[in-house]
Amino acid sequence: MSISCTKNIFERFCVEEYNIDTIKQSSFLSADLLPSLGARINQSTKLRKHIISPFNPKYRAWEMWLVFLVIYSAWICPFEFAFITYKKDALFIIDNIINGLFAIDIVLTFFVAYLDSHSYLLVDNPKKITIRYLSTWFAFDVCSTAPFQPLSLLFNYNGSELGFRILSMLRLWRLRRVSSLFARLEKDIRFNYFWIRCTKLISVTLFAVHCAGCFNYLIADRYPNPRKTWIGAVYPDFKETSLWNRYVTALYWSITTLTTTGYGDLHPENPREMLFDIFFMMFNLGLTAYLIGNMTNLVVHWTSRTRSFRDTVRAASEFASRNQLPHDIQDQMLSHICLKFKTEGLKQQETLNNLPKAIRSSIANYLFFPIVQNIYLLQGVSRDFLFQLVKLYSLTFHFNF
Amino acid sequence: MSISCTKNIFERFCVEEYNIDTIKQSSFLSADLLPSLGARINQSTKLRKHIISPFNPKYRAWEMWLVFLVIYSAWICPFEFAFITYKKDALFIIDNIINGLFAIDIVLTFFVAYLDSHSYLLVDNPKKITIRYLSTWFAFDVCSTAPFQPLSLLFNYNGSELGFRILSMLRLWRLRRVSSLFARLEKDIRFNYFWIRCTKLISVTLFAVHCAGCFNYLIADRYPNPRKTWIGAVYPDFKETSLWNRYVTALYWSITTLTTTGYGDLHPENPREMLFDIFFMMFNLGLTAYLIGNMTNLVVHWTSRTRSFRDTVRAASEFASRNQLPHDIQDQMLSHICLKFKTEGLKQQETLNNLPKAIRSSIANYLFFPIVQNIYLLQGVSRDFLFQLVKLYSLTFHFNF
Amino acid sequence: MSISCTKNIFERFCVEEYNIDTIKQSSFLSADLLPSLGARINQSTKLRKHIISPFNPKYRAWEMWLVFLVIYSAWICPFEFAFITYKKDALFIIDNIINGLFAIDIVLTFFVAYLDSHSYLLVDNPKKITIRYLSTWFAFDVCSTAPFQPLSLLFNYNGSELGFRILSMLRLWRLRRVSSLFARLEKDIRFNYFWIRCTKLISVTLFAVHCAGCFNYLIADRYPNPRKTWIGAVYPDFKETSLWNRYVTALYWSITTLTTTGYGDLHPENPREMLFDIFFMMFNLGLTAYLIGNMTNLVVHWTSRTRSFRDTVRAASEFASRNQLPHDIQDQMLSHICLKFKTEGLKQQETLNNLPKAIRSSIANYLFFPIVQNIYLLQGVSRDFLFQLVKLYSLTFHFNF
Amino acid sequence: MSISCTKNIFERFCVEEYNIDTIKQSSFLSADLLPSLGARINQSTKLRKHIISPFNPKYRAWEMWLVFLVIYSAWICPFEFAFITYKKDALFIIDNIINGLFAIDIVLTFFVAYLDSHSYLLVDNPKKITIRYLSTWFAFDVCSTAPFQPLSLLFNYNGSELGFRILSMLRLWRLRRVSSLFARLEKDIRFNYFWIRCTKLISVTLFAVHCAGCFNYLIADRYPNPRKTWIGAVYPDFKETSLWNRYVTALYWSITTLTTTGYGDLHPENPREMLFDIFFMMFNLGLTAYLIGNMTNLVVHWTSRTRSFRDTVRAASEFASRNQLPHDIQDQMLSHICLKFKTEGLKQQETLNNLPKAIRSSIANYLFFPIVQNIYLLQGVSRDFLFQLVKLYSLTFHFNF
Repeated sequence: MSISCTKNIFERFCVEEYNIDTIKQSSFLSADLLPSLGARINQSTKLRKHIISPFNPKYRAWEMWLVFLVIYSAWICPFEFAFITYKKDALFIIDNIINGLFAIDIVLTFFVAYLDSHSYLLVDNPKKITIRYLSTWFAFDVCSTAPFQPLSLLFNYNGSELGFRILSMLRLWRLRRVSSLFARLEKDIRFNYFWIRCTKLISVTLFAVHCAGCFNYLIADRYPNPRKTWIGAVYPDFKETSLWNRYVTALYWSITTLTTTGYGDLHPENPREMLFDIFFMMFNLGLTAYLIGNMTNLVVHWTSRTRSFRDTVRAASEFASRNQLPHDIQDQMLSHICLKFKTEGLKQQETLNNLPKAIRSSIANYLFFPIVQNIYLLQGVSRDFLFQLVKLYSLTFHFNF
Repeated sequence: MSISCTKNIFERFCVEEYNIDTIKQSSFLSADLLPSLGARINQSTKLRKHIISPFNPKYRAWEMWLVFLVIYSAWICPFEFAFITYKKDALFIIDNIINGLFAIDIVLTFFVAYLDSHSYLLVDNPKKITIRYLSTWFAFDVCSTAPFQPLSLLFNYNGSELGFRILSMLRLWRLRRVSSLFARLEKDIRFNYFWIRCTKLISVTLFAVHCAGCFNYLIADRYPNPRKTWIGAVYPDFKETSLWNRYVTALYWSITTLTTTGYGDLHPENPREMLFDIFFMMFNLGLTAYLIGNMTNLVVHWTSRTRSFRDTVRAASEFASRNQLPHDIQDQMLSHICLKFKTEGLKQQETLNNLPKAIRSSIANYLFFPIVQNIYLLQGVSRDFLFQLVKLYSLTFHFNF
Repeated sequence: MSISCTKNIFERFCVEEYNIDTIKQSSFLSADLLPSLGARINQSTKLRKHIISPFNPKYRAWEMWLVFLVIYSAWICPFEFAFITYKKDALFIIDNIINGLFAIDIVLTFFVAYLDSHSYLLVDNPKKITIRYLSTWFAFDVCSTAPFQPLSLLFNYNGSELGFRILSMLRLWRLRRVSSLFARLEKDIRFNYFWIRCTKLISVTLFAVHCAGCFNYLIADRYPNPRKTWIGAVYPDFKETSLWNRYVTALYWSITTLTTTGYGDLHPENPREMLFDIFFMMFNLGLTAYLIGNMTNLVVHWTSRTRSFRDTVRAASEFASRNQLPHDIQDQMLSHICLKFKTEGLKQQETLNNLPKAIRSSIANYLFFPIVQNIYLLQGVSRDFLFQLVKLYSLTFHFNF
Repeated sequence: MSISCTKNIFERFCVEEYNIDTIKQSSFLSADLLPSLGARINQSTKLRKHIISPFNPKYRAWEMWLVFLVIYSAWICPFEFAFITYKKDALFIIDNIINGLFAIDIVLTFFVAYLDSHSYLLVDNPKKITIRYLSTWFAFDVCSTAPFQPLSLLFNYNGSELGFRILSMLRLWRLRRVSSLFARLEKDIRFNYFWIRCTKLISVTLFAVHCAGCFNYLIADRYPNPRKTWIGAVYPDFKETSLWNRYVTALYWSITTLTTTGYGDLHPENPREMLFDIFFMMFNLGLTAYLIGNMTNLVVHWTSRTRSFRDTVRAASEFASRNQLPHDIQDQMLSHICLKFKTEGLKQQETLNNLPKAIRSSIANYLFFPIVQNIYLLQGVSRDFLFQLVKLYSLTFHFNF
């Protein structure tokens, strides 16, 4: 008796410990993980006046909208940097509107509560929010939003134009928003992991191709002797050709190098281009390895289900034929395996067995208590005893239904 | 006693639950998974008049035959698209015969029962079949079968010829049949997974090479200045050379690019070709990563058996030498490991242990009951007790024979 | 009591079943697996007169020696095929000596017992050996040994020379010996898996490079217009240059293509070469994927130990710091993990637990019986009881020492 | 009772066995593994006079400083070898200072205790240290430190200069220090495995690129006909161009080949260069496969956490929705999974369960004894009984808190 008693004590201890955990979790549930789980928990915790929750649907929509602007920025920044020499008014205005929107976001961030990474509690103290933002990303955000082009118009922008252009590349800092979006989507089971991962990889590759093409064109454009450049050696009057042709040629060179096809019709002609190419090829080596690594990972995971099904069926049928089991048992085995393969993943049983006893017993209680209650033999027995029975069963035997 | 009793109750509950499952499965067994398992269950369920079962051997043969026609279509479509400018009579007739056969298949589909994806029951209601087909693939099937060539002959096909050609590429929709064939073969344990997967990858690669070669030739063929094309820059009078030479050159360019060898003797000369090449190289990057990912997957699986054998033998021999076990025990251990490695896969024991108790106890009963029955000590004992004994044994101890 | 009794019965049954297995194994031990395990079991089974055991050390040495000849053949065959046009006497004689040795091996094979793949018994019946050899590899072996060169000297070898050359490529059939050698070495724990696998991959790559280079040279050599060949376009008088230069150029082309570097200084110039290149590049795609797949496999296995060690140490130290365990327990945990990592592999415990009960109990008996015997408390107890005690312990508790 | 008694005996036996292990470990703790674990154990074991411990912080700093010199050597050695023809005084002096420092290290090594690989004991016997060093790496270390340049100045260094240069490549033997540093860092959980591995791979790649560039330049530099070299064919007067340009061109060629881009603007022109290129491309094939293999390994490990989290959440939510569990149980399950994913790795439970019983029971004792002691029900019970209770609990039930 003492043993079962201590067991109970220990269990209670565990449960209590767990409850302490759950209290902690109630805030944890509001972490960036859970909104992706099904969003039932709607983060309706009350915050101070004028402070917005980061889980506010409107704020989320605003952030989503900014991500699209970021994608536009990421494309236009290197492009402007390399190809646009004259001031195109429409582009100039669009750029400044986007900058304005990002400036609004900077101001907004001072009014958005944040999640403390240790306590998993939403902090809505304006002072704390300000300190945290100023000490982390504020400087970067301001730099990536500062209107360098209008500023350059104020000054005598003859020699310093390249400097302003390089500064405008700071806009790419905004890409961290896309990166964090992907990190969140990957954990969200409502989206297909394979396609999110693929989209991410394709985006990275396209961005690398675009950037490298633009930079390489800029190097050729600024080189003193246009004939001794990668593009000038083949198209001596390349500066007169249309923007579209030059952009396509730059992209073509870039992707030819990235995929290591290297036809060689366009290749570096001077040390400056060679140096750029050396760095680009080193980067490509890494990127290609990363792409292949990810693809392997996805393929392995993708085929693992089919493979596991094959192995299980083979094992069962070999066992059946070796022991000459009758047909009906064979069919039962096969149909059980097929059903299991169709309905559930392989992780289910493991997941359930790894749950703490408290949760497991409450599941068992919910599932079996109504049945046990109706059993004739156990009619007169007290509810407590039935509860213990179900609990004992769920603890002793692993979930196998 | 109450505990063993409740255990029994729970077990009965599990068994009953399982039986409900089996009832569901009786239809599930007719799903597309099982016919690949050994085809003993011959789908002899009676259907309405004029309705064909999708598991009918004759219908299966017809489908298999269509797959061969699809392969021919997949090869001839891009080829005709790019290389054949004049009306070759034989080809024209063959094309239309094939189209006719696919038209027959469209009509046939209205009379083939389908498997409901939720209930796993064969639906033989003609109305339901019609609604389902019309709302899913009917439009695509019709488009991929419509005789665009004869239609183009009726109209004045001067300017609109290219349009008709592009429409004829819709025939490639038929490839979904090949894709679903491979998906089925992969799950069929009668075929070697490695070779099916390899065949699939090689087919995809060859098809990509063929298509890219044909499209790229078409671009060169239609370009206003033949000298400024990838093929015309090297062979200025390429339009006069034989069809075979042009096709081999196109394939050669295609595979040189796909494998990223990129000799550079043939390379894009105008923005249109560069653009096509950019897309083809992006596609190649993905395809190469996919090929390598699959190969890695296969190699890992292939060598895992040998590797596991090595690790097991090493662990056993290290243990034996550290504990200075006598030679006979060492030999027993080694020979047991060798035998296990030879006769069964590694998954067998796991598979058996994951089976539900009901099945496991019936296997144990089948295997052990005759033996237990003949034991002298248990001679007078009732059959029920023996049955319980065997069952208990199979439940308590894991399968370890 | 009845339960423990039946348990015993079942165990006995298992042991008996196992003994039947061991009887089967006594012959299995002589399979091709075991000689690689440590060769203690010296296959001294008596065979009929004039019949050699395949495990005879002398026969093994002879086979090893043949493998070296095979490597020489594999190198010289394509080389002679492509580069040697005149009869070089020394080479001619060496070739025929090697052919003679392989002819001896064919004769010898009729006197070598073989291992039945079902019963794992050595078959020494001369009739059965003859039938088996004649029905399997005899034809191939004869074809790969037939002296085509001397035969071609007998006939008027003007036009048919190429035919004889192609026939002499049948010698490459001998490579199956190298292949089966590698398969055996991979299972032999005395050799490092990584290096054997690497050697195999490098051999395959080198052989592919050598063959492709030779074939490609042959195509150029036989082409009517030497100027329109891959080598003739760069070195117009290539047929006059030294053999060494031509061979290095061929190898250089071959490896440039295989690694997909594709400088493009040497590239196909006519459809015949393009066609060969298409096939070679398709093959390369597969080979590269295979190389990368294998390397990934090896890297994953290689780093898994370090990684597992890191994970274990991290888990232990996190647990310790979270629960604020005192330093001495922490040190004990860490030192235990380190020791385990150093002395044994990860598979040991699993291997032991997967052994059948009969073996496990005999190990436990060997290890613990002497200790139990000397325990004061158990002094008067019968040997049988002690034996049961040790056995029970080994069965109930998993090996954890 | 006898059973529990024998259990105790066996346990004691295990504990004793373990204690013997711990004694062994006390020295093992001083092995090269543990200093990386957290360095609490400060290796303050007393050694003989004038003998330095290998774990002495000052000696470690000296070794770290040498590693930086090694990196410099690794870069300058091939560079001097290929590009520097005249005696540059500054470089000459720096080289000799570095050589001097390495010479000091050789002398120092005779006074550094070493760790016996069998007993894991620090050996401080000067005689044994001397014998061990002389019989292992002494010769290599001396060769890699010998001042070949000053020696070459003493002799008439006309013809033999190349010989001295090749001898100076022996300096690369020093790289073993970098290799062993990486091996140690990989096992140190204070560092991120991913970045250490990446740094290692990038270092190896950069070193390969640098070496190959330098060697290839040397081959071109020494070739009789400068026009027939890879660099001379494009830049006929390459020997007059600046050192920087030549070095960048060499690196550019090297990386173009390594990444298999192979533009083809620079390619081997003579058999000597072809031969070097053949070996370099073979090496590249291996290196690329190794890079991809490593990257795959890292990607798989990196994404496994996210993936495992996804699978677990999906399994739990599918189970919940199928069994229509109430919301509060669902939330409990999800929050438990999230918490587990956040706080601990997946290995923790497994690690704890694999610890020997002795350690496990002392952990349980430390964690639970204070709680059990305060339980009212167990107030009067003896400490021994409580201890046994906790121990029993920890042994019977697996760690699940």
